[in-house]
Amino acid sequence: MKRTSYIGELGQAQVGTTVTLQGWVNRRRDLGGLIFLELRDRSGTVQVQVEPDSAAFAAADTLRAEYVVEVEGRFQARPEGQRKGGLADFEVIASRVTVLNAARTPPFELEKGEQVAEDIRLKYRYLDLRRPEMQRQLMLRSKAVAAVTAFLDAEGFVQVETPMLTKSTPEGARDFLVPSRLNPGEFYALPQSPQLFKQLLMISGLDRYYQLARCFRDEDLRADRQPDFTQLDMEMSFVTQEDVLEVQERLMAHVFRVVLDTELPLPFPRLSYHEAMDRYGSDKPDLRFDLRFVDVTDLFRGGEFAAFAGAETVKVLAAPELTRKQIDELERVAKQNGAKGLAWVRREGDSFTGGISKFVGGQAAALLERSGVQPGGTLLFAAGDWKKAVTALGAVRLALRDLFNLAADGPQFHAAWVLDFPQLEWDEDSGTWTYMHHPFTAPHPEDIPLFGTDRQGEIRAQAYDLVLNGYEVGGGSIRIHDPAVQAQMFQAIGFSEAEAQEKFGFFLDALEYGTPPHGGIAWGFDRLVMVMAGAGSIREVIAFPKNNRGVDLMAQAPSPVEDAQLAEVGVVVRDQE
Amino acid sequence: MKRTSYIGELGQAQVGTTVTLQGWVNRRRDLGGLIFLELRDRSGTVQVQVEPDSAAFAAADTLRAEYVVEVEGRFQARPEGQRKGGLADFEVIASRVTVLNAARTPPFELEKGEQVAEDIRLKYRYLDLRRPEMQRQLMLRSKAVAAVTAFLDAEGFVQVETPMLTKSTPEGARDFLVPSRLNPGEFYALPQSPQLFKQLLMISGLDRYYQLARCFRDEDLRADRQPDFTQLDMEMSFVTQEDVLEVQERLMAHVFRVVLDTELPLPFPRLSYHEAMDRYGSDKPDLRFDLRFVDVTDLFRGGEFAAFAGAETVKVLAAPELTRKQIDELERVAKQNGAKGLAWVRREGDSFTGGISKFVGGQAAALLERSGVQPGGTLLFAAGDWKKAVTALGAVRLALRDLFNLAADGPQFHAAWVLDFPQLEWDEDSGTWTYMHHPFTAPHPEDIPLFGTDRQGEIRAQAYDLVLNGYEVGGGSIRIHDPAVQAQMFQAIGFSEAEAQEKFGFFLDALEYGTPPHGGIAWGFDRLVMVMAGAGSIREVIAFPKNNRGVDLMAQAPSPVEDAQLAEVGVVVRDQE
Repeated sequence: MKRTSYIGELGQAQVGTTVTLQGWVNRRRDLGGLIFLELRDRSGTVQVQVEPDSAAFAAADTLRAEYVVEVEGRFQARPEGQRKGGLADFEVIASRVTVLNAARTPPFELEKGEQVAEDIRLKYRYLDLRRPEMQRQLMLRSKAVAAVTAFLDAEGFVQVETPMLTKSTPEGARDFLVPSRLNPGEFYALPQSPQLFKQLLMISGLDRYYQLARCFRDEDLRADRQPDFTQLDMEMSFVTQEDVLEVQERLMAHVFRVVLDTELPLPFPRLSYHEAMDRYGSDKPDLRFDLRFVDVTDLFRGGEFAAFAGAETVKVLAAPELTRKQIDELERVAKQNGAKGLAWVRREGDSFTGGISKFVGGQAAALLERSGVQPGGTLLFAAGDWKKAVTALGAVRLALRDLFNLAADGPQFHAAWVLDFPQLEWDEDSGTWTYMHHPFTAPHPEDIPLFGTDRQGEIRAQAYDLVLNGYEVGGGSIRIHDPAVQAQMFQAIGFSEAEAQEKFGFFLDALEYGTPPHGGIAWGFDRLVMVMAGAGSIREVIAFPKNNRGVDLMAQAPSPVEDAQLAEVGVVVRDQE
Repeated sequence: MKRTSYIGELGQAQVGTTVTLQGWVNRRRDLGGLIFLELRDRSGTVQVQVEPDSAAFAAADTLRAEYVVEVEGRFQARPEGQRKGGLADFEVIASRVTVLNAARTPPFELEKGEQVAEDIRLKYRYLDLRRPEMQRQLMLRSKAVAAVTAFLDAEGFVQVETPMLTKSTPEGARDFLVPSRLNPGEFYALPQSPQLFKQLLMISGLDRYYQLARCFRDEDLRADRQPDFTQLDMEMSFVTQEDVLEVQERLMAHVFRVVLDTELPLPFPRLSYHEAMDRYGSDKPDLRFDLRFVDVTDLFRGGEFAAFAGAETVKVLAAPELTRKQIDELERVAKQNGAKGLAWVRREGDSFTGGISKFVGGQAAALLERSGVQPGGTLLFAAGDWKKAVTALGAVRLALRDLFNLAADGPQFHAAWVLDFPQLEWDEDSGTWTYMHHPFTAPHPEDIPLFGTDRQGEIRAQAYDLVLNGYEVGGGSIRIHDPAVQAQMFQAIGFSEAEAQEKFGFFLDALEYGTPPHGGIAWGFDRLVMVMAGAGSIREVIAFPKNNRGVDLMAQAPSPVEDAQLAEVGVVVRDQE
């Protein structure tokens, strides 16, 4: 028999018809001689009533949770008094129940899945994925894949699969290595990103490229990382930054429209890196709420309060009324993010009390006016080196968001661009300039004359990040296509020609055979889907994730392998010391 | 400046307008003081004429092959006498030429790319990919990806990415191994296929799954193999074989319609495995031409010609007139494919001459009638063990196709199903029965009673191959969901319960938690695109393929890596002996 529809497709139109449904027994209850089944498929659940004198009863009476069944019966509306809306308003009166497969008792109750230890959920992932929430998330992800593909195909982007077995490069994160049996002693690396290959495709004249690319980085797995992840990778030729941003905004809006039936207002707001840091203390600010820093450096400069008087920057954040305990917690956040402490004052009437209030008497009127702090509200200060101060206060801003649910009043989704990242970063450790994105990122043309001067740090890159609800969901740049600029860039970061050749070899050769102006972007696809789904972790939108030891608890990977297998690929396990 | 359009979009409608084009200098000719450029982008080429007194001349005069340029000018029709159709009927009279980038002289002439040694093409793949033929193939592939995605999404299939770092299993081909740094002494394996994971997704209740999946097999790279390849992987729950075939036919027809504007007639013809072998000597017969074997076993059985008299099978193929040299060549093919020789006779009038003609006198009339051989035509015989005989003659059939271009008169594409494969194969080496596809393939229900009898070899699997132009482009099966049948299957192939548990561990556990009936298929996507594109090798439809040593000649992968890198992941290179 075929099902007549998925459960979730049933509604008023099917009332009075005979339906055939297939799915899992979500729950069974026996009441007054009747059997009530909750039947579940990926689209929903519906109640099935089996009467004691029906042909369906004998089979139904064998059922337990998670048995696979086929149910035939009359679809009807439930009595008026029992309607709650949706599928709960209907039921199936079974005329036939066929057991398609039995099931052992699951190791955890699916309905309580969210409270189950993640290790158990991951070990029995095939059961965990039966939970409606997990199915919704995977289906949302799939819809996003289809939406992206349809849009980019229509816009003339060419999907190309780049190599998975590629060359290890000393740049960037640690590579996963793959020994080559046919070339003993040699190793492939799994790709950290298709960066060089997508630029090569532009050199090939393919003009527009995209790929949902699996990428691999062998890093210590903090918090919400996976050893492999998925990137929506794109590149375009003969474009300016403006062209890339324009296509990306339309793509993002298309995905939200198709997948979530949500309109994102276009164009996206733009902030420079400096603005984002200076106002929100983050290069991926959560702009669902606008709480921003107020600069009060001038109020304190050279004044009597020593801690502020000589500070490069003094910023203040106007918080609601805070308890002493909350202030302590926020101070902890500030310290974790590089601050020495968190100065504060509380507004009472038109003056301030508590905290550092005795040092701000002279500035009270100006502080009131600039910050707009409410009566009873708290002002939180960060002072010191600009980047350190704003970064710490940025973390406090997010803690306030979580404490007072500040994002709830804003739009559900807020997308923005952060632009004009610095081309070069000063690396304290090595005492040299290094690239912020990658060494092929193009600088703003008008900043090129600053290369080699003491103002190198002011060079702005043609780099852009796409920020959604406080997450960086995309990042990219216009690339250098002019060999002269490339040489300046290498010089700035202290690469000799020989060194550059050694590190980037064939790619630098390729650049000389007729490279068009080009640029692109990559979306962190797992993270984007996580934000779209409102999930708490990327593990919730990945079907079979690893835990934070890089272990697949279900398949039990990695695992020891036979010596013969290792011998074939030409390696031996290193003795533990 | 933005381009006004791709070159290939230009036509009569643009005549008289000013166009801005961007691309590469395909060729430059200087004639009568004028410069003629052939400008190329991914969509086509057009002639650009630069007049000596124009503002464009100075820049144009610096151009060489493969320079990147922007050209602005008036688009016009060429003089009547010079029209050849298509873009060659038009030209651009340049008003501005801007050099966007210079290019070194390419190491080979792109227009002669097909004659260049493949090693050179692979080393400079970014230049090889500039050839219009390569771009057409990659764009065709991309269109196929988009068509597949749109169709499957609309049909309710859920795209899911399965793990790339998974567990090594002793079954099947050799694994590529990845040492785990976080778990020293342990290894991931790159997936040979998502088979178990897609079945787990059905156990999860996801109902319909698809993925364009990269798969890895570390085999010796014969002929047209790659260490990694792409599979369009699908799985469906609550389906019969008929349901799978029906969706697959509509999917294939959709892809051909969208990508090639070609209608495939539905439904696809079906052959059983036995019919395919018996008639065409192949389980993936090329049916663009119908030349089939004629069975003449009965004519010779117990007769005077000893070589045929006791043979299990005698098959004959009616070929056109063949020279002696051609017969020798075909005999070589037959021998390479397991035959001891290739018997033949030539029709002259109503009798036969040459070859084994003195042995077929008595059967001449019957041979003439059954084979329908033309006057002057040749009959080619294969005799002996059925499978060996038909296999050898099947290879001869394909050699005849190539010799006489027999496929040319048939449809450009011929898709068919081969069904009813044997569930079990006798393994001569081990002297045991083994599975033909994989051990989870479901048998025909009516054949299940044959398990454990001496007719095990007759059990038909619910397995199906999708065959296109003589290539297997897809293969799949209905899977076993009944633990009792699974146990019978393991017993048939001599697996103890402990052995099965060791080999398939967690998957067998999962099967017991409520597995729906399910089945699926995987397409060899590279091969499908190769056939669709009319390309000679899968390397022609893969952007950056490996050579037959598994080497990426452009990126120079694999390569030696630093000892420190190896130390981190806990392995050392094995000493060469």
